[in-house]
Amino acid sequence: MANVLVVHGPNLDLLGTREPEIYGRVTLQEINQRLQEEAKQLGLEVRFFQSNHEGEIVEAIHEARGWADAIVINPAAFTHYSISIRDALEAVQVPVVEVHLSNIHAREPFRSRSVIAGIARGQISGFGVGSYLLGLRAASIVVSEPRA
Amino acid sequence: MANVLVVHGPNLDLLGTREPEIYGRVTLQEINQRLQEEAKQLGLEVRFFQSNHEGEIVEAIHEARGWADAIVINPAAFTHYSISIRDALEAVQVPVVEVHLSNIHAREPFRSRSVIAGIARGQISGFGVGSYLLGLRAASIVVSEPRA
Amino acid sequence: MANVLVVHGPNLDLLGTREPEIYGRVTLQEINQRLQEEAKQLGLEVRFFQSNHEGEIVEAIHEARGWADAIVINPAAFTHYSISIRDALEAVQVPVVEVHLSNIHAREPFRSRSVIAGIARGQISGFGVGSYLLGLRAASIVVSEPRA
Amino acid sequence: MANVLVVHGPNLDLLGTREPEIYGRVTLQEINQRLQEEAKQLGLEVRFFQSNHEGEIVEAIHEARGWADAIVINPAAFTHYSISIRDALEAVQVPVVEVHLSNIHAREPFRSRSVIAGIARGQISGFGVGSYLLGLRAASIVVSEPRA
Amino acid sequence: MANVLVVHGPNLDLLGTREPEIYGRVTLQEINQRLQEEAKQLGLEVRFFQSNHEGEIVEAIHEARGWADAIVINPAAFTHYSISIRDALEAVQVPVVEVHLSNIHAREPFRSRSVIAGIARGQISGFGVGSYLLGLRAASIVVSEPRA
Amino acid sequence: MANVLVVHGPNLDLLGTREPEIYGRVTLQEINQRLQEEAKQLGLEVRFFQSNHEGEIVEAIHEARGWADAIVINPAAFTHYSISIRDALEAVQVPVVEVHLSNIHAREPFRSRSVIAGIARGQISGFGVGSYLLGLRAASIVVSEPRA
Amino acid sequence: MANVLVVHGPNLDLLGTREPEIYGRVTLQEINQRLQEEAKQLGLEVRFFQSNHEGEIVEAIHEARGWADAIVINPAAFTHYSISIRDALEAVQVPVVEVHLSNIHAREPFRSRSVIAGIARGQISGFGVGSYLLGLRAASIVVSEPRA
Amino acid sequence: MANVLVVHGPNLDLLGTREPEIYGRVTLQEINQRLQEEAKQLGLEVRFFQSNHEGEIVEAIHEARGWADAIVINPAAFTHYSISIRDALEAVQVPVVEVHLSNIHAREPFRSRSVIAGIARGQISGFGVGSYLLGLRAASIVVSEPRA
Amino acid sequence: MANVLVVHGPNLDLLGTREPEIYGRVTLQEINQRLQEEAKQLGLEVRFFQSNHEGEIVEAIHEARGWADAIVINPAAFTHYSISIRDALEAVQVPVVEVHLSNIHAREPFRSRSVIAGIARGQISGFGVGSYLLGLRAASIVVSEPRA
Amino acid sequence: MANVLVVHGPNLDLLGTREPEIYGRVTLQEINQRLQEEAKQLGLEVRFFQSNHEGEIVEAIHEARGWADAIVINPAAFTHYSISIRDALEAVQVPVVEVHLSNIHAREPFRSRSVIAGIARGQISGFGVGSYLLGLRAASIVVSEPRA
Amino acid sequence: MANVLVVHGPNLDLLGTREPEIYGRVTLQEINQRLQEEAKQLGLEVRFFQSNHEGEIVEAIHEARGWADAIVINPAAFTHYSISIRDALEAVQVPVVEVHLSNIHAREPFRSRSVIAGIARGQISGFGVGSYLLGLRAASIVVSEPRA
Amino acid sequence: MANVLVVHGPNLDLLGTREPEIYGRVTLQEINQRLQEEAKQLGLEVRFFQSNHEGEIVEAIHEARGWADAIVINPAAFTHYSISIRDALEAVQVPVVEVHLSNIHAREPFRSRSVIAGIARGQISGFGVGSYLLGLRAASIVVSEPRA
Repeated sequence: MANVLVVHGPNLDLLGTREPEIYGRVTLQEINQRLQEEAKQLGLEVRFFQSNHEGEIVEAIHEARGWADAIVINPAAFTHYSISIRDALEAVQVPVVEVHLSNIHAREPFRSRSVIAGIARGQISGFGVGSYLLGLRAASIVVSEPRA
Repeated sequence: MANVLVVHGPNLDLLGTREPEIYGRVTLQEINQRLQEEAKQLGLEVRFFQSNHEGEIVEAIHEARGWADAIVINPAAFTHYSISIRDALEAVQVPVVEVHLSNIHAREPFRSRSVIAGIARGQISGFGVGSYLLGLRAASIVVSEPRA
Repeated sequence: MANVLVVHGPNLDLLGTREPEIYGRVTLQEINQRLQEEAKQLGLEVRFFQSNHEGEIVEAIHEARGWADAIVINPAAFTHYSISIRDALEAVQVPVVEVHLSNIHAREPFRSRSVIAGIARGQISGFGVGSYLLGLRAASIVVSEPRA
Repeated sequence: MANVLVVHGPNLDLLGTREPEIYGRVTLQEINQRLQEEAKQLGLEVRFFQSNHEGEIVEAIHEARGWADAIVINPAAFTHYSISIRDALEAVQVPVVEVHLSNIHAREPFRSRSVIAGIARGQISGFGVGSYLLGLRAASIVVSEPRA
Repeated sequence: MANVLVVHGPNLDLLGTREPEIYGRVTLQEINQRLQEEAKQLGLEVRFFQSNHEGEIVEAIHEARGWADAIVINPAAFTHYSISIRDALEAVQVPVVEVHLSNIHAREPFRSRSVIAGIARGQISGFGVGSYLLGLRAASIVVSEPRA
Repeated sequence: MANVLVVHGPNLDLLGTREPEIYGRVTLQEINQRLQEEAKQLGLEVRFFQSNHEGEIVEAIHEARGWADAIVINPAAFTHYSISIRDALEAVQVPVVEVHLSNIHAREPFRSRSVIAGIARGQISGFGVGSYLLGLRAASIVVSEPRA
Repeated sequence: MANVLVVHGPNLDLLGTREPEIYGRVTLQEINQRLQEEAKQLGLEVRFFQSNHEGEIVEAIHEARGWADAIVINPAAFTHYSISIRDALEAVQVPVVEVHLSNIHAREPFRSRSVIAGIARGQISGFGVGSYLLGLRAASIVVSEPRA
Repeated sequence: MANVLVVHGPNLDLLGTREPEIYGRVTLQEINQRLQEEAKQLGLEVRFFQSNHEGEIVEAIHEARGWADAIVINPAAFTHYSISIRDALEAVQVPVVEVHLSNIHAREPFRSRSVIAGIARGQISGFGVGSYLLGLRAASIVVSEPRA
Repeated sequence: MANVLVVHGPNLDLLGTREPEIYGRVTLQEINQRLQEEAKQLGLEVRFFQSNHEGEIVEAIHEARGWADAIVINPAAFTHYSISIRDALEAVQVPVVEVHLSNIHAREPFRSRSVIAGIARGQISGFGVGSYLLGLRAASIVVSEPRA
Repeated sequence: MANVLVVHGPNLDLLGTREPEIYGRVTLQEINQRLQEEAKQLGLEVRFFQSNHEGEIVEAIHEARGWADAIVINPAAFTHYSISIRDALEAVQVPVVEVHLSNIHAREPFRSRSVIAGIARGQISGFGVGSYLLGLRAASIVVSEPRA
Repeated sequence: MANVLVVHGPNLDLLGTREPEIYGRVTLQEINQRLQEEAKQLGLEVRFFQSNHEGEIVEAIHEARGWADAIVINPAAFTHYSISIRDALEAVQVPVVEVHLSNIHAREPFRSRSVIAGIARGQISGFGVGSYLLGLRAASIVVSEPRA
Repeated sequence: MANVLVVHGPNLDLLGTREPEIYGRVTLQEINQRLQEEAKQLGLEVRFFQSNHEGEIVEAIHEARGWADAIVINPAAFTHYSISIRDALEAVQVPVVEVHLSNIHAREPFRSRSVIAGIARGQISGFGVGSYLLGLRAASIVVSEPRA
């Protein structure tokens, strides 16, 4: 049974209330619940972490070493500048699945640049809550069929 | 029962033989077979189209109007310059899921720019054959929960 | 009596159905009919060619040599990257009038760059079907009052 | 009967003497005369305005409000930097047809950028005096078939 | 005895007629004949392929696998944007010699960028028909002295 | 009998010892010997010049006036910044063949820019010692079939 | 009692009629009246100047020397290119408060660049008529607490 | 009675000691006191928050929802890169007034770019403590005359 | 006896008072007087024109046709954006000497770009009043030794 | 006896485990120990601070005022974007020595840009733990020979 | 009596033979002779130095310290990249007059950038031999009226 | 006992006289003397080389092969453009320590780019003579603990 850490970046604690036309009306708690169910089906153990503090996310990633077989992360705003999170993800050497609720390649130009993507196994964006569910499934694939 | 057109761009007919360290050893036929099975589970009708000719892909997209509820497309090299395929996808107004075998955001700089992404519902890249399977599932989500 | 070849680029076969708020509701057939009438008034012989295939457009241009005194072309998406069509137009040394239904200088930034314009006699954009009619008239001017 | 203001930008008062290999040998007076005749045929009332002063052009545009149904403007050098004229044209909310004697997209790179085009209905360039005649006709189209 | 595929890109079928001051007056047929003679001297088997269709060139490259020991290609206009041809050449893993009639580094700025060069063994440009002859000889060198 | 000056730029005196995986194991002396033999076959008189000093190369080019019918030059590092050598080559008005051992278009981005290419007749890169041999042959073509 | 010159740039004479969704419905006369009242409260003497002519604004600034203790200027379109007005403001060495009705940093990209800001004491944008009132108050602060 | 949250970004706790030639000699406490007095006059309830931690600022903004009618924020260094604070401000949908002590448009180039400005109602910079006072007044305007 | 028009651009009427550390303490009148004396020595007839209005400068240049054999112009701020003045200078086909009091290549980056230089015979900058005197002498050279 | 604060940025707590091929196998504790010994030899008092939180580093810098005569900082990922740390360092006006384990100028392009360097006394990169030791020695030099 | 060093950069020893349509037909010796005569009239002692070697020019500049009151330099190709010559000129702290035979601002784009201009007193370009004569006169002005 | 070559680039022979506010008042001879003493302490044999000629530096580097275990180089102006010195350093495969007297990252923008850094082991800048002493010590570290 593989372990997956799901990380939610800044402002995602507001989900369900913030700009629903972009992010939908589901709350973070509901997302986590759906991920929990999906995990059960996929035979994954899953833990959740949300923070608005870059440093806390960095440390949550550090702590994932030893436990997590994969990390599913929605870095939110940090996607675009947190080289610190990138370095943390690269350092722990756990495969990373980057997810985004909205299609970051179809919004303001500055949103299409991800400093995380360069060290991620892959990226999924644009499917709302679905991005998370697909991301968990992607983690399941990555865990079961490592690229060597 | 929803219908999905899966489009494979240029050089993907070589799959299984081309640069396996990047694209894996599975052939296009095997991918289609796995997609067929997945489609059955998701309750989708799926058709496949591969071409090395931009014009043929444009016309396959035109013909999808009326039949397809979603298009899953791996534009391959066309990702980076075929505004013609972008216009075709935008014209038929069928939701588009863009998929890539490799993580295009972690390769040569010119590969990270997609002229398709701006009109796609979402993008999935980096999970090998898994990108297609996740893409089909994403199409299933998009079809069942339209964004309005 | 001068001869004019009118070339329609990719996706223009969808005209009348595609994004009417940008391109209007007239079909390609109707445009050609109106051009036919206008040509009669201007004393021009006119032929039409539409293709979604870059190579076919290149070859239609090649074949225009010897017959056409001017080419009116709406390169559509090819406007922005088909150096191959540019080279074909330059090679046959027939004066070129570039037309666009929408004002390409007032849309997405990538649409304002034309690789064709550098070798065209002139460019007309933004007047819907009117762009074609004005383009035909421009061809008539070019044919009757050569600049060289 | 619709009214059209034709605006000639700076240095166009020299027409017929200035770099004839680029701009031809016709004088501004002759152009206006030909436009007058064309207007009669198109059932348009036309007025002319030339100035080398940006401020005067801005004010001529202001005064067009209430009278003009369309403005045909050759902004000449102002094409490339006069945001003031752009703002004036946008403010009076009369449809604008931008014309250029030479093909601005086939000259020095700085000439291909128009700060006016973003708010114009369309642009015509490269046909010498013909650009004006086609521009008047374009105005006639725009006036009779408004885009909503 | 080594085998070499010679690929001619779009518009090269016009050779001998197109802009002779840049490309000379020799026809494609004559070039092929001279290459045939040169090949005999160099002990090479040579086949020719010309197309104005990107997709056909991609497929001709695919078919070269198994037969060709080297590919000499003049991608013409495709040099500057056909990532699809680049991917095809990279996929078949046959050494590539890129040739150009004119010196692409001494013309319009956009011509100096080659999307092919990054995966070619080498590039020869500027010697007219001579570029092809030198390219064949380069292929002969590459075939006999592989770089490992 | 035509005369050709072969110029070797800086650090090429180290050839055969420097980064053999890029430049091979042949020494400069051996290259010159092979060029000497090739020259004999091509009916060319050939002289050699190597220097690590930009000023000496400039002066060697000056001295070539009157004697040389063509210059084959591998500017090495000077390729990328020595406008002084460019000016010297342009001033003496002897046709120039630019050669490079490695494919400069497939290495670090700064290596793909040549300040020499703009005034060269042509460029050959990527064939190791072969680039020199092909360059001599190119010089032979240029000398026998002048473009002007 | 300190003196303040308020300068209104081009097209601001149209205020109250131009694009009300961006600029509001207040006329320039009303703005001046409200500024007059505010000035009285702040113990300032205030004069107004509006022009669509860059040269006139330059000269109004020249004339402010000797009288004005501060200049409040809404350069409108000139914000983005009139280095001439910048030089005039710098030359008279009167402190400058730059104001804008709309938030220039949240509109078209070209509007966020001010050639004036580099020599202004400060900038206020986005508060409609309020920008002027705040600008007058800022001038009052600047006048009473000079920065040395 | 409207409520305003005043947010001070990183390093502003050093005010009065840090680079006085740029930021003046007033302490943050004194600024808050003056803002308190000004608020009383303007009939505003005002609260203050300072932090050097991006995450704490994000959360202070979250908490402002429900209480604050406007936010006056001096993001200090975060102005230039904290997309996280931008997203927080956008999410809570409270009008934002961005203030800066110094004129950020007249310092190092990197300081003129604000990632906050795109979602702010307006921006005030360059008037030292006055920027805050004007900012509070701007908030008062915004609160009393909403833009729809 | 040759005729020279000397044109002074905007803000130069302030000379002697404006930023003396950059522009010196000599007034425009004194400069003209010194130019008058220099002209006498060089056997030139000289006229002067200063304006803060772009349009007036354009028209002064138009009027120079027929009388002036050369134009010495200090375009001041217009150097950097007045394509209108550039076009006027190009149109009248009188040789142009561009002068600047300060060294425009050693100030703010935006000052080093001249839109005038591309059509000037030459440029002199950095010698204060000396730039004008040298410019007059340059005009004298240009007039007596035309470049063909 | 001079005092030096040594600051370690984010992820450096993982040292000795993270990407050893780039950062070596020494732990942060061992580095601090070696710095302690070196400090004793150099007659310096040294304190250490590590944090993954930007805000904490900012505050540690604030607290260094009054005690520290120099700061040696390895900002790690913050090097590339934390203007907040830059401002803190500039504010406390203690001389700064910036150190990096790896040669940041020879890695991914984004790593060569330091927002800290502009306010540092100097920068040392590429010598692994040696960078710290050299940095401490540099601090010792800076402290004993102030630049005025 | 003031002393002036005149420095001629690379390839200028070819003057009178090199591209006469750009540089004229006068030899370097003749230029020096004319400068000698002009110097006598201006009451200047003048010495000449030409080299194709950057290092020799650097050292000639070093040696000018103590003797020269001004340096007139035509850096030719070194204008565009020799920061070494720039540093030498800056180090000796003798005022520098930069001259160019042709108008470097009206040729290939790379020629308009001078790395020397930033430390020169002024620049003169475009007047052929006249540029040198004017440059000497400029040196005479600079020497007699130092800028403080 | 390890051997180190210390290379001083152009204009460094002027040290102690040139811009002392940037480079200090120590002469090159004194620097070498202090390096000699430091070397003795570090157990290093050290040789010195200074030249203003790029070619001589290239050759001094060539000659270091076989003797030197490390090279400490202050490339001075060559830092920014001498790819020739870069290639020489890379070719001899001796570890390189790049040093700079001033902090090149805090001066004119063009000084922050080093073409040498990409092949150096590390870089030290900003500590005046101290940069050399630290550089020697860095060489000592590099020599004793090679990176594999």
